[in-house]
Amino acid sequence: MDHYYAVIMAGGGGTRLWPLSRKARPKQMLRLIDERSLFQTSVERLGGLFGCDGIFVVTVVEQAAELRQHCPDIPKSNYLIEPTPRGTASVVGLAAVMLQRHDPQAVMAILTSDHYIGNEPGFREILAAAYDVAQDGYLVTLGITPSYPSTGYGYIQQGGLIQNYRGFNAYQVLRFKEKPDEDHARAMLAAGGHAWNSGMFVWRVDRILEELARQMPALYSALQTISAAGGTADLHATVESIWPGLKEETIDYGVMEKAEKVAVIPAADLMWSDVGSWDSLFDVLPGDPQGNLVMGGQHIGVDTNRSLVYVNQEHRLIVTIGVDDLVVVDTGDVLLVCRKDQAQRVRQVVNQLKKSGGEFV
Amino acid sequence: MDHYYAVIMAGGGGTRLWPLSRKARPKQMLRLIDERSLFQTSVERLGGLFGCDGIFVVTVVEQAAELRQHCPDIPKSNYLIEPTPRGTASVVGLAAVMLQRHDPQAVMAILTSDHYIGNEPGFREILAAAYDVAQDGYLVTLGITPSYPSTGYGYIQQGGLIQNYRGFNAYQVLRFKEKPDEDHARAMLAAGGHAWNSGMFVWRVDRILEELARQMPALYSALQTISAAGGTADLHATVESIWPGLKEETIDYGVMEKAEKVAVIPAADLMWSDVGSWDSLFDVLPGDPQGNLVMGGQHIGVDTNRSLVYVNQEHRLIVTIGVDDLVVVDTGDVLLVCRKDQAQRVRQVVNQLKKSGGEFV
Repeated sequence: MDHYYAVIMAGGGGTRLWPLSRKARPKQMLRLIDERSLFQTSVERLGGLFGCDGIFVVTVVEQAAELRQHCPDIPKSNYLIEPTPRGTASVVGLAAVMLQRHDPQAVMAILTSDHYIGNEPGFREILAAAYDVAQDGYLVTLGITPSYPSTGYGYIQQGGLIQNYRGFNAYQVLRFKEKPDEDHARAMLAAGGHAWNSGMFVWRVDRILEELARQMPALYSALQTISAAGGTADLHATVESIWPGLKEETIDYGVMEKAEKVAVIPAADLMWSDVGSWDSLFDVLPGDPQGNLVMGGQHIGVDTNRSLVYVNQEHRLIVTIGVDDLVVVDTGDVLLVCRKDQAQRVRQVVNQLKKSGGEFV
Repeated sequence: MDHYYAVIMAGGGGTRLWPLSRKARPKQMLRLIDERSLFQTSVERLGGLFGCDGIFVVTVVEQAAELRQHCPDIPKSNYLIEPTPRGTASVVGLAAVMLQRHDPQAVMAILTSDHYIGNEPGFREILAAAYDVAQDGYLVTLGITPSYPSTGYGYIQQGGLIQNYRGFNAYQVLRFKEKPDEDHARAMLAAGGHAWNSGMFVWRVDRILEELARQMPALYSALQTISAAGGTADLHATVESIWPGLKEETIDYGVMEKAEKVAVIPAADLMWSDVGSWDSLFDVLPGDPQGNLVMGGQHIGVDTNRSLVYVNQEHRLIVTIGVDDLVVVDTGDVLLVCRKDQAQRVRQVVNQLKKSGGEFV
């Protein structure tokens, strides 16, 4: 697949795994699943599909140096730096104009840096199929066939079949839907024809820039200025001056919802998770016979079931007695004790801490 | 009240508030309720009833120095040292022979060092009444009128009224009962005429020694040897040589259950607690509007109710989300997370740790 490039979005400050994830230690840098960071895993799972020269990383200045240490094989010039985060629309736009200068026929896979995918060969197969769909002019979204009525993901409603590509059906997209309440989630699961929005996309750079020009003309115009400075000594200063003025926007809301020719490839068996909260680790990691996930430290569990215990000090004893479905995370300065089904509310606490001075965030 | 002496038992290694209480930091040394240790509180609540010369402390060698620092006004010679703990029968016997040498007419109040008593004036009134009952030759047990069907305390079944002393009714004791199961506890509460055994006693030294001579002749004989060495340079060596050979026994089982002339004074309003497990602190300390007890550290509680959070570091943030009736105790090296109604099972973990090398105990 000539002209195929991966663009990994790695600038997020995700605090959904707080108190382990922090502003200075975002989720993609965590070594949660195995000894590799989620960012390293995201690069390595691409296997031979892209050479190191074909993998680009968009991040923020604070994270660039550490990410380069995680994946030193990716050329330094492939790390594209945002002065400040401005949402995924700007990330996509920046990567698109830079790739277009490099290869006007480029097809780019926009990938996440902090998700889990258990079935890596299957993931590469779907990326290969998406390349073909994108070559036909579609903006392709990678969908995940829902396994339960999640209220934590956005949904994509499928329309008519476009055709089968390399064994994968690609469908027209009827509608993008925000994170639903539980009733709506159940209804979509019962109705069928809905996929979770994985936040991963594949398209030709000319197609996405065409949509940006039509739907986000201010951003498009800014990107043209940056593109003109590409390859000159002014590039850095140009980005620095333009970026703060950009409107913060997601690619989903800014482009995808009203774009022409949008396709979805639903995948049923990727074993995908966005690792978006502590409870999601139970989908990803095997528990002990009591269903507990114990990570770090020494643990004695008495009548303890389906609970997570994380501690970042080896010589620390955690004793749990009579505890079910609980999350206990100890990072030394912070201890979180949270009912598993309320793990999303960690965000609420992080927001509260940000407002009151930002300590512990 | 001439000839009245307090004997405070302060040698226990209580691990029921583990991980805060440890072998080297037993419960009586903890500053849990206020800025004073439970031992200090136990001495200070005696008020003017006993002079400092009239307060004796029985403890073990490892604890003596620190206890003396807690209560430096008690003469050093009033600290009686057990080489090793041998149960409350030996403690009582040692104090009895030492007091008898000092004052053959002594009446001794055997008191605990690690309990809470909210109504201190009421406690002194009951001690005064018990003195009179003891002068009439009774072995007096201080009973607590049960407020709920506790399975954590022993019970005393009251018999006929002896008479009223200083406003307090003293009853014959029909029977001592071990910690009951819940059905028996409910039945006793419904039947009335039962009091919790507080572990506090008042008697004349001649009466208790008479009972020891009759019921525990081996201990009595050993105590006579010790008494004979009293006031000589041999005392310490004599105790050291005799103590390891003593049978470990409680005063309840060894003497009280089969003694002659046993009385109980039930007290309804002492606001007494043995502080015997983490959940008992809810009986003793006022909670916040959500019923939470927060001790130390910084705490953010989201939907957190009737829970205890203890942390011994000020600069540590504890966040609890969606948590009811939970005990969280963080001592730096150990973190305990325990359902409140299972707090007694801490003992089970301590025993397990003792068997596996004794670390963290």
